Amino acid sequence: MPKGDLPKTRRGRARREQILRAAEEVFGEAGFAAASISEITRRAETAQGTLYIYFKSKEEIFRELVVEMGHLTRTVVTRALDPGATRLEAERAGLAAFLHFVAERPALYRIVEEARFVDPAAYRDYFTTFAKAYEARLKKAQADGEVRPGDAEVRAWALMGMAKALGERYALWGDPAEIDGVVDEAFALVREGLAP
Amino acid sequence: MPKGDLPKTRRGRARREQILRAAEEVFGEAGFAAASISEITRRAETAQGTLYIYFKSKEEIFRELVVEMGHLTRTVVTRALDPGATRLEAERAGLAAFLHFVAERPALYRIVEEARFVDPAAYRDYFTTFAKAYEARLKKAQADGEVRPGDAEVRAWALMGMAKALGERYALWGDPAEIDGVVDEAFALVREGLAP
Repeated sequence: MPKGDLPKTRRGRARREQILRAAEEVFGEAGFAAASISEITRRAETAQGTLYIYFKSKEEIFRELVVEMGHLTRTVVTRALDPGATRLEAERAGLAAFLHFVAERPALYRIVEEARFVDPAAYRDYFTTFAKAYEARLKKAQADGEVRPGDAEVRAWALMGMAKALGERYALWGDPAEIDGVVDEAFALVREGLAP
Repeated sequence: MPKGDLPKTRRGRARREQILRAAEEVFGEAGFAAASISEITRRAETAQGTLYIYFKSKEEIFRELVVEMGHLTRTVVTRALDPGATRLEAERAGLAAFLHFVAERPALYRIVEEARFVDPAAYRDYFTTFAKAYEARLKKAQADGEVRPGDAEVRAWALMGMAKALGERYALWGDPAEIDGVVDEAFALVREGLAP
């Protein structure tokens, strides 16, 4: 089977999924260097040979998790949106969805951050892809008069950075019960700025 | 000599400084795990025994660089400020100073980010200390009517995250000549927000 393709059978897909979830746990706890294939297969309750049907290497599993985090983040953020929402409403809902998601899947957040060192190309690709899509949405909102004119690329990176730092402070290190209050405050900053 | 204290002689301080600059280079290029004491002493043109007069271990040198990045960032940002500046003017000058500093010392940025994995306590301490000071300045500005009322802690983390992401995109990966334009755009967002 060409690596990277999804298995054809339901059982194969379930096994691949089991391996990814075990890997998410192990990478999240131990970090990339200390994580071992044998620990991943132990937790996935699979033979090592089975793992190698689906993935070439530890590196490939790690990269797959980074890509997965990208898909999941986009899905979670998109699902949180009311289809008729304005861009500002979408900013608020997207930030809330992202912070709750980080609180639920802290290992994936950590894996993406570790990718900066383990797989710099995957790391850069992750954020660049996300920023490009974000930029396009901000440009459209500008054209529709929903946000003030401004450089959509700079805004996309600034807003992503804000969400990332708030995710670290409040979703990873803090009390998830605080998240909704944090979203209110951060959204007020994004909407109105600091000027009195 | 108790480790962590500065050497008493000028020559000792110069040697310690040489070791730190070599370590900044080596950690920045190779990352913590691949960096070796022997490569650091080779570039510092020092004997290994000399290095151990000043530092207990590779871990201690790494931690010292994280602490140094904290001091330097605060110094660079503070120096950029006109003493009579309002908080909003200070936000702009601070962001510009930070982005130019990241462009000049990319290895230090990378070292702080790697600290999340190498020395999580130092990483968390770095950002928590910075955020506390930032929060205090924002609170004062609020009391002085220079910024709109709002949660200073959330704002501090949001603004730090913004600076960090812009540093990565424009100071590490981009063209430093773009930095001033990026500061203009990011500052407009911080001042006025997105609302039309």
